[in-house]
Amino acid sequence: MDTNWSVRLDTETRTLGARTAARLRELIRDGVLAPGTRLPAEPELARRLGVSRPTLRAAVTELIGDLLLVRRRGVGTFVSAAPRPAHGLERLTGTGRGITLVGRRPGTTGLRVRHVVADPALAAHLHVDPGSPVVHLTRTRTADGVPVAHCAEWIPAGLLPEPTALDAFGAEDSLHDRLAALGLPLRQAVARLVPVVPDADLRDRLDLASDAPLLLLEQRHFAVAPGDRVALFSRHWYDTDRIDLELVRRG
Amino acid sequence: MDTNWSVRLDTETRTLGARTAARLRELIRDGVLAPGTRLPAEPELARRLGVSRPTLRAAVTELIGDLLLVRRRGVGTFVSAAPRPAHGLERLTGTGRGITLVGRRPGTTGLRVRHVVADPALAAHLHVDPGSPVVHLTRTRTADGVPVAHCAEWIPAGLLPEPTALDAFGAEDSLHDRLAALGLPLRQAVARLVPVVPDADLRDRLDLASDAPLLLLEQRHFAVAPGDRVALFSRHWYDTDRIDLELVRRG
Repeated sequence: MDTNWSVRLDTETRTLGARTAARLRELIRDGVLAPGTRLPAEPELARRLGVSRPTLRAAVTELIGDLLLVRRRGVGTFVSAAPRPAHGLERLTGTGRGITLVGRRPGTTGLRVRHVVADPALAAHLHVDPGSPVVHLTRTRTADGVPVAHCAEWIPAGLLPEPTALDAFGAEDSLHDRLAALGLPLRQAVARLVPVVPDADLRDRLDLASDAPLLLLEQRHFAVAPGDRVALFSRHWYDTDRIDLELVRRG
Repeated sequence: MDTNWSVRLDTETRTLGARTAARLRELIRDGVLAPGTRLPAEPELARRLGVSRPTLRAAVTELIGDLLLVRRRGVGTFVSAAPRPAHGLERLTGTGRGITLVGRRPGTTGLRVRHVVADPALAAHLHVDPGSPVVHLTRTRTADGVPVAHCAEWIPAGLLPEPTALDAFGAEDSLHDRLAALGLPLRQAVARLVPVVPDADLRDRLDLASDAPLLLLEQRHFAVAPGDRVALFSRHWYDTDRIDLELVRRG
């Protein structure tokens, strides 16, 4: 472990605890804090990160919950020797937030927002009548500027306060945050996992050199209780050569 | 909905509540209880299933937790219109149990138990020294007689009470149950999801007609706390044309 690191937090709009946790994640991801090493004592670590000890403690607790750190009673807190969930699919987050969680910078290219009507297949996914108006987003997500996933998303226009509510959706916006602000907080999703061979369009959008398979996540998102309203149906094609998809399974 | 169904529970060794839940799952999976339909009144349903009302209630509560049923206050209990998690990857279960949970009959072919030594890559996955003794299982899992996954599993021999403890492992056995009985209950796993093109060996073992991609789950299982001992490293190649892999994501 390089003992000379010292960091400053950037000025994002997250809480200091969350930013501190994100910074620790980065240090672990980059191997500055190597697997199996003990964290510096709390006052020392708080000083290096430029935060208070309660803030540090909140961040450490979060990372213990994420399996990145392990506390050994009477010995100290260690960087987990376990593999680190890179995306934590068991938790429902937007793709952009997922990219941030693994310490990379999310971006969006090729955003389009369209108004379509549901064909029978889409109507079945969204639990709306065929012919119902639907807002359709397509965009490609990048991590540190590299395309990692292509996303197609469909929202029943009837659930929005106005059908045009997403027309001004921007490349920097979070769809999860935007839907929550529109009264559709996403609580739960059921994802189906399917390995697929990319077609020419996906190869082009993701700038793929080969037809190595992608992982498709086909998801129904629920706004309130499951079995209630499908607020969002999405298909995300991930290039797992460029971003790890992991999940923590609990017995 | 066909209103003429009536069932009898088989005589498995699970609790009556669990068997009742499994039977309800089957009725839902087979469409006898179609999405969106209301369940019959409790006395009527208990009679048809041949169980007591408390047993039925326990089963219904379990299926509500699994998103298969939705209770609407003052109206009744409905079969969820939501897609049904077929395998529930967010929950750590053995593959055989996962196959049972989707209402299919698990089986095993081609089981082999071998004693090997860890090469550097395997040693890194298992957190043991290269050259350490490892018990290696390979087997193909079937659902209703159809191959759905090929599994390769590695257990550090040093964690077993005796290195030969798994030599008598049988095709009908559950590795999760067997490891628990040997003092290694699996609590948690971190799974990495990778779409892969099957090689000739996998095509043969899974009886595949094409080289359509499979979904590889590469998993480290932890016996006690995460970051502690890796009790099992496994690779499972799933044919998602033959078994749905789904997971419930919660915000």
